[in-house]
Amino acid sequence: MSIKIQKIAIIGMGKVAKNLAVAFQKVGLTVQIYVRNLSPEYILFANQSALSIQHLADIDSNADLYLICVSDAGIAQVGQQLLHLNLPKQCIIAHTAGGQNIEKLSKIIDNYGVFYPLQTFSEGRMVDFNQLAFCINASNPSTIDSLCELAHQISNPENVHIINEEQRAKLHVAAVFVNNFSNYLFALAQQFCQAESVDFNLLLPLMRETVDKIHANPQNISCLQTGAALRGDYTTIAKHSELLEKYPNWLQVYQLLTEQILAFYQK
Amino acid sequence: MSIKIQKIAIIGMGKVAKNLAVAFQKVGLTVQIYVRNLSPEYILFANQSALSIQHLADIDSNADLYLICVSDAGIAQVGQQLLHLNLPKQCIIAHTAGGQNIEKLSKIIDNYGVFYPLQTFSEGRMVDFNQLAFCINASNPSTIDSLCELAHQISNPENVHIINEEQRAKLHVAAVFVNNFSNYLFALAQQFCQAESVDFNLLLPLMRETVDKIHANPQNISCLQTGAALRGDYTTIAKHSELLEKYPNWLQVYQLLTEQILAFYQK
Repeated sequence: MSIKIQKIAIIGMGKVAKNLAVAFQKVGLTVQIYVRNLSPEYILFANQSALSIQHLADIDSNADLYLICVSDAGIAQVGQQLLHLNLPKQCIIAHTAGGQNIEKLSKIIDNYGVFYPLQTFSEGRMVDFNQLAFCINASNPSTIDSLCELAHQISNPENVHIINEEQRAKLHVAAVFVNNFSNYLFALAQQFCQAESVDFNLLLPLMRETVDKIHANPQNISCLQTGAALRGDYTTIAKHSELLEKYPNWLQVYQLLTEQILAFYQK
Repeated sequence: MSIKIQKIAIIGMGKVAKNLAVAFQKVGLTVQIYVRNLSPEYILFANQSALSIQHLADIDSNADLYLICVSDAGIAQVGQQLLHLNLPKQCIIAHTAGGQNIEKLSKIIDNYGVFYPLQTFSEGRMVDFNQLAFCINASNPSTIDSLCELAHQISNPENVHIINEEQRAKLHVAAVFVNNFSNYLFALAQQFCQAESVDFNLLLPLMRETVDKIHANPQNISCLQTGAALRGDYTTIAKHSELLEKYPNWLQVYQLLTEQILAFYQK
């Protein structure tokens, strides 16, 4: 039988930890936060919203869930530290990292898993947990149930998905293209505009509409492609390349993506 | 003195033409549309919203503005056809193409220019002209005034900008990165998910948040970068590359953008 998670100890104080702590507290769950280094910003946050501790030995030994929200590289180490605390056998230990296998936690406890909010988290910006997908997996069905039930408390049920290790790793790759790489393209366009004294802000509505039209019709994004490469307009492509000549890195991105679009649409 | 544009003849029946025709009619301007090939879809649209003609010789010879909304390659040709119609000397001829110099129209009439709505237009989706930048330029100040005044009628004044030829060409390059290339990345992520039987829709909120966080803080998009390449997380980069091994094109995009992000953030 799955346990109902009511007491949560969060290890870490990054953007994911903060956002989850606030969301859990809002729905009446008991939250404790462990953070190694106290910063003034952290003290302010912890005083406002969660019971904080500075030594892992002080962690609540009766929590239902120990949620590891640290950098990918630190997960195994935190797991080892938790192992030494002799936590009760029935508790759950989970991490929040999309790109990390849950097997990293397999030697610590029977009930382990992942509680991954598929979103980009930013300093100073609270995430809306109703507007993202929770990807859940765990070492056994009852732990999966417990973590899903927890996600249901802070998000709409249709946003909560059981995703196995292989699928989550692939989603994580796709997320790089959707978020990291598109952000890089937007940043590159901004730097180009700044270097050429053009007002980048004129492009903000275009950026919004690019995504809005996909949301309105997400079945086949290839059909929404527009531009010179789609049309096979080599005159415009040559003009663009000339304007990018001073910036070899950006020209390289222009050339690779243009070549692939031309090939995809057989122009 | 600038003329107040009240009668507009639109040449072309693409997405830009349709959207502008509807917007002009909504504010009470007289619109005539010339289209070479009548499709059933076109007849439906023209009957609903604009007076249409099938022969360029039938075009209203007293229009204040002849607006060329055809493909880039067709602009000069339409210009030549208009030249043979002996239009009144004081009228304006303008095109709507961001990537085309206004000088293409210089031999036809004294008052020529560009009326460029910086946006991506999609079939079956009406554009909100209050949510985009109009880039205006013309052969003389009074024509610039007339075109700006026209844009003010269908958009907020703060969205209307006088942009010279060189600046518009550069904006057009930046727009390729913001729209064409980001759409290609989103399409690529979708195709990868489909090929790997992963539900791409889980990534839609991430796509939205990527753009929302830029709109909330557009000053420096580089600061919003997240992900393995930003962190210099070579273990994750190697894992991602392995998952992309079957797809050489997509791997090439992954490698180039990852290298550039690593270099930019000096990881």
